[in-house]
Amino acid sequence: MIHHGSYDVAPWEVCERTLDLDVLAQSESVFALSNGHIGLRGNLDEGEPFGLPGTYLNGFYETMPLPYAEAGYGYPESGQSVVNATNGKIIRLLVADEPFDLRYGRLSRHERTLDLRAGTLTREVEWTSPTEDTVKLRTTRLVSFAQRAIAAIEYIVEPIDTPLRIVVQSELVANEPLPRTEGDPRGAMLQGALESERHGTHELRAILVHRTRSSELRMAAGYDHLADSAHDLQTASQSEPDFARTTLSAQIEPGSPLRLIKFIAYGWSARRSMPALRDQVSAGLAEAKHTGWDDLMRLQREYLDDFWERADVVIGGEPRLQQALRFGMFHVLQSGARNEGRAIPAKGLTGSGYDGHAFWDTETFVLPMLIYALPAAARDALRWRHSTLDKAQHRAEQLGLEGAAFPWRTIAGEECSSYWPAGTAAFHVNADIANSAARYINATGDDGFIDDCGGELLVQTARLWRSLGHHDSSGSFRIDGVTGPDEYSAVADNNVFTNLAARRNLLDAADTVEHSPELAHALGVDAEEAAAWRDAANAMTIPYDEALGVHPQSEGYTDHAPWDFERTPPDAYPLFLHYPYFDLYRKQVVKQADLVLALAMFGDRFTAEEKARDFAYYEPLTVRDSSLSACTQAVIAAEVGHLDLAYAYMTEAALMDLDDLEHNSRDGVHMASLAGAWVAAVVGFGGMRDFGGELTFMPRLPDQLTRLRYRLGFRGRVLEVVVTSKQATYTLHSGEPLKVLHHGEEIEISETDTVERPIPHLRPGKRPRQPPHREPFGARGVG
Amino acid sequence: MIHHGSYDVAPWEVCERTLDLDVLAQSESVFALSNGHIGLRGNLDEGEPFGLPGTYLNGFYETMPLPYAEAGYGYPESGQSVVNATNGKIIRLLVADEPFDLRYGRLSRHERTLDLRAGTLTREVEWTSPTEDTVKLRTTRLVSFAQRAIAAIEYIVEPIDTPLRIVVQSELVANEPLPRTEGDPRGAMLQGALESERHGTHELRAILVHRTRSSELRMAAGYDHLADSAHDLQTASQSEPDFARTTLSAQIEPGSPLRLIKFIAYGWSARRSMPALRDQVSAGLAEAKHTGWDDLMRLQREYLDDFWERADVVIGGEPRLQQALRFGMFHVLQSGARNEGRAIPAKGLTGSGYDGHAFWDTETFVLPMLIYALPAAARDALRWRHSTLDKAQHRAEQLGLEGAAFPWRTIAGEECSSYWPAGTAAFHVNADIANSAARYINATGDDGFIDDCGGELLVQTARLWRSLGHHDSSGSFRIDGVTGPDEYSAVADNNVFTNLAARRNLLDAADTVEHSPELAHALGVDAEEAAAWRDAANAMTIPYDEALGVHPQSEGYTDHAPWDFERTPPDAYPLFLHYPYFDLYRKQVVKQADLVLALAMFGDRFTAEEKARDFAYYEPLTVRDSSLSACTQAVIAAEVGHLDLAYAYMTEAALMDLDDLEHNSRDGVHMASLAGAWVAAVVGFGGMRDFGGELTFMPRLPDQLTRLRYRLGFRGRVLEVVVTSKQATYTLHSGEPLKVLHHGEEIEISETDTVERPIPHLRPGKRPRQPPHREPFGARGVG
Repeated sequence: MIHHGSYDVAPWEVCERTLDLDVLAQSESVFALSNGHIGLRGNLDEGEPFGLPGTYLNGFYETMPLPYAEAGYGYPESGQSVVNATNGKIIRLLVADEPFDLRYGRLSRHERTLDLRAGTLTREVEWTSPTEDTVKLRTTRLVSFAQRAIAAIEYIVEPIDTPLRIVVQSELVANEPLPRTEGDPRGAMLQGALESERHGTHELRAILVHRTRSSELRMAAGYDHLADSAHDLQTASQSEPDFARTTLSAQIEPGSPLRLIKFIAYGWSARRSMPALRDQVSAGLAEAKHTGWDDLMRLQREYLDDFWERADVVIGGEPRLQQALRFGMFHVLQSGARNEGRAIPAKGLTGSGYDGHAFWDTETFVLPMLIYALPAAARDALRWRHSTLDKAQHRAEQLGLEGAAFPWRTIAGEECSSYWPAGTAAFHVNADIANSAARYINATGDDGFIDDCGGELLVQTARLWRSLGHHDSSGSFRIDGVTGPDEYSAVADNNVFTNLAARRNLLDAADTVEHSPELAHALGVDAEEAAAWRDAANAMTIPYDEALGVHPQSEGYTDHAPWDFERTPPDAYPLFLHYPYFDLYRKQVVKQADLVLALAMFGDRFTAEEKARDFAYYEPLTVRDSSLSACTQAVIAAEVGHLDLAYAYMTEAALMDLDDLEHNSRDGVHMASLAGAWVAAVVGFGGMRDFGGELTFMPRLPDQLTRLRYRLGFRGRVLEVVVTSKQATYTLHSGEPLKVLHHGEEIEISETDTVERPIPHLRPGKRPRQPPHREPFGARGVG
Repeated sequence: MIHHGSYDVAPWEVCERTLDLDVLAQSESVFALSNGHIGLRGNLDEGEPFGLPGTYLNGFYETMPLPYAEAGYGYPESGQSVVNATNGKIIRLLVADEPFDLRYGRLSRHERTLDLRAGTLTREVEWTSPTEDTVKLRTTRLVSFAQRAIAAIEYIVEPIDTPLRIVVQSELVANEPLPRTEGDPRGAMLQGALESERHGTHELRAILVHRTRSSELRMAAGYDHLADSAHDLQTASQSEPDFARTTLSAQIEPGSPLRLIKFIAYGWSARRSMPALRDQVSAGLAEAKHTGWDDLMRLQREYLDDFWERADVVIGGEPRLQQALRFGMFHVLQSGARNEGRAIPAKGLTGSGYDGHAFWDTETFVLPMLIYALPAAARDALRWRHSTLDKAQHRAEQLGLEGAAFPWRTIAGEECSSYWPAGTAAFHVNADIANSAARYINATGDDGFIDDCGGELLVQTARLWRSLGHHDSSGSFRIDGVTGPDEYSAVADNNVFTNLAARRNLLDAADTVEHSPELAHALGVDAEEAAAWRDAANAMTIPYDEALGVHPQSEGYTDHAPWDFERTPPDAYPLFLHYPYFDLYRKQVVKQADLVLALAMFGDRFTAEEKARDFAYYEPLTVRDSSLSACTQAVIAAEVGHLDLAYAYMTEAALMDLDDLEHNSRDGVHMASLAGAWVAAVVGFGGMRDFGGELTFMPRLPDQLTRLRYRLGFRGRVLEVVVTSKQATYTLHSGEPLKVLHHGEEIEISETDTVERPIPHLRPGKRPRQPPHREPFGARGVG
């Protein structure tokens, strides 16, 4: 765990002032740079020590067999795992015969700064070698938003006291040895996954081409350099199959630093030939070199200025939370910015956690932010889903279903979950995708997307639901034997979240084909089929426990034994590491918001009283052994008036990685939780709802926050909402006038009319308690 | 599939008149010999061709890791698999330089006969070699019921026309190459599982000692021979680590056959040293040799005479069914006769199917026959369970439960099921064991067993149930999230079979400790604990669907969509090979009797009308993709008056292996189905019930049977029931007078008074239909 206070509190940067090798892996995740296309972990320039070396290329993976002691029909036979690609960020340094290695010598300064506006990671070091030679090093790294195949490093080294012989070795390394993880046979399978196809150097440039052994994906990685002409540099380049190195050596004087720019480029493909990829990378390097370091930096900042201008969320009163919120938004931006046609994995490209897979997280937690903050990235993420539709249709056919069954976890579209009760059975992912597409359409009015992708996503998922459910003898439509969001339950009947999500999906599909006869025709939807979707949606079973006055998460859930929290020691969390699934599944204990997620996502289907009662019922059962819970609990806590609790949950979501709350940030940051902090702010305290495409607001701040300002893109508009404890102010920065609701009252906002409205008072019920030892992190006074 | 007519119909033997190499593996299972301690598949003496070479020693297994792509708490890490032990039955033959191999030359006669009264497998061959030399071979094989470590072979070879040089090579072979089974990584792991510790020969004797690589079990295998002194035999013996051979050669004249007796002995242990096991086998051989072939044959027949005298079931009208019934009883006898302290696996010792594991089958299907036919074998099988109690208690603790949680599948007592929804969650195995123990106690009055084993089995399983269930707010006792007998459902609430089985278990445990305060004290049961068992039993939830007037298999079951049988093609059975579990689990389709098994096992908890309605409801849903179903359906079909249907089911159960109905008899015979044929006869048409230890009868014959006679051991008595279409006759052959019910009327039977009673007429409802293509085998006119 990174101890509280590791990073300075600052509005626009995350700065680490000392180097703690014990938390190196975590800081590598925090300091990871990515543009959604390529991702570099915040590894030290000189390559080691490291926590987990990582260079990731979106969609570049290896396949491996999934083992089963007892196989079953439809079990996926092959898994996919993100591969640590050729490492281009290594720059080693020799100072008067002593290798620059922080484990030796004396470190008088070591600062790393992630600049959220510049989009760079800067490192400043002052180090005295074991032989008492002192150098200053300053490096700046970026992964370009402007040129998606390019990363670049500015490397500046300077002796402090006396002239020194300096040797800089800039490298490409393939098949880096990874740390052994106990009990991880897949890790072993990934070692040496890259087979060399070509290597070569030319002047200060080198390119390595490799291919993955089993998935047969080809990758080219290359570098080129610009070096000062001021020094009398000796240079040499050499390459081997898994290795390329350019060496620069010179005698350097104090006050006359050596400055080197390294451009790194990647290209990868399942189809393109070795020469084609080699030349692609070479061209990318030429372009980057032509652009130059200064212009790459300028373009980087312009891209971010534009993003923050349109999407920044400002909070008053809690600088640390402000920092965490922007840090999270920055990582979400990095995950989606240039992911054109590829997935947004659960960890983005910041680590190899979850094998680099994308889950329902993307559509449910990440896209809600991107839709309003960077709609093009949301569109591209949905386009990626659409590009895997053939695989999802094949999977549905294999499962005996109509339409499309998207995978629970995947890189390339094939189902990679080997444990079907928490994979295949979690069909809600299909509605999550469809509902996210509908939300994108509603928020952007992007009709072209409907025709290209969105309509087909809605239709094929609606077909799935219609074939997955059935009418019972009373005419109710049931969806039996599925797993909802809560992973401590599985294979249950009529999960409320799933049924409401499917209902929305069915209605949106029916509406879409009704409004577009061409689309209906193209997809073969006739009036009978659309009517059957509406019928199923309108007859959807939503179980309710009359005796308790609450919604059971799934049918019969409230009859199950409550988990014995009193006999569960604090160190027995997360529960799934200490108790069998069979026991978790059969008892009332919630890993992550499920019914409460339904309250948030389908809030128009519940009364305020129902929300309050349901939230009060599920809070004492919800242990948050998943990072996908706190943000949702924040939203509903805020809605029902438990603002202090909502604040605690938002804090937990936002600090997930900066404070390493789940002790696994080493594997990559928790993209959904970081996006969830935005959700907690904008949807929770900001009160923004978009059910069925109608924007409504019911903002309300906790005592800890003096002010909240957020901006949303909505159908070509930029809308700003400023909330204080007393009032909300709605401003339209651009676009057509818009009618919205403020706490139920219709208001019209235009570029000329800023609207102010008071915040009505809400008297909440008794503050619900969480399970023992499971109060939110933010409630423990850390925020 | 063995085609109908492969075996001659005869009352006391199974005779194959021609050799069909295509079904060799099946016939090896059918002709397997065993005494429950060691088992020899019916492989040809000369070793090849073979379908599956097999020599099995009860409890001799190898361990291997169980792989998981996604691991979970409490998943078993290690599996167990029966090992093909050192093969001692090989006797090769060289006829004037030509190896005796049925794939070459000309076979003018090949008969194999399994004699159900002699307990032998006899083979008669007349073969002309490719060089036109003709020999007659007659071999007889037995696995001794009298000397459990011993098998023996009489081997007689004779030239027909001219004197011939004959070489007989009698062998021991360890680590035999096994046929490769596709997609069976465990098979590969078992190759070469035996590591040699010692080998040696002395005169005509040889012993090999091996140890399994991972489980570290030691095994000694040895042979010795007696040969005719009439011939001028040259003999030689040699051994290697995996191999021993004794060669006998002579010039043999027509009319003066060479006769050789081979004695084979085995010893195995996890603890005993190499010298100890070596000497144990040597002593066994000495004893067998001292006994001699004739006396081994005589003792074998005496053992079987006694068994058939006490347990034979005679049916009139259907000779083929009579044969199948006795064949089945013979195999069940073989599986249990001398299994002292070890398990009865699902395949007995006839094949390596299911890895040689024992399941709930033993207690639920096999023991009901053994309890009345060979109670000592039933007792020993239950003693084996008791011997694994420490492992079951450890497992319960691991699962967070009280008492004992017996494994779903195992050889040595550890859970070996890697798929928890159909393994760990199938808790009913614990009640199956307890209820079987109670049945044994009731049927035998074996009080010593209560004190030694039975009481503790009842108490520890009762503790499990009490901790597994809970009271809901209305005071009903629920058992949620468990899997019942039907493997096409899983992880459901309040499975009727499970709840009734647990209820019986709880009540029997409470009664037992009430009647034995010493036992209660020894096991730490106080009055409160026993009362809590009774309370739970009496408050047990038994769901009922009022609208349909039937019992749902589990709560909510009847709301699920019915399986779409119309769209299921005939070649899509068994369904689990063609449809995913998720889909099977969520629909109404029954793999094997579950609610109907509850009707049979806990028939006193249902009215006649309920049974008729429930049976009618479940018949069209039950596909019998398991061999554990037909016998139970026979019992209830008979009870509700569908006698013709019951007859078809009995036929299916009885012919499971003789006709290879499930196309997998090659892996071993289906012990539960074979025992189930006895159940169908005695419990089904014989109408015998023993709920709570009270013997009752409601016999009724189908038109196909003219007569049924069966004998039961009951508390020291031998009771005979003869049933015709008109009447039942009850005779006591030995023991105290006994009161029983005949169709509800109390009658008293004594050695002096045979009682005759008429069979009351029963008008059944409409004959229920089975799913399309799934009518019982016996209904298709094959019986």
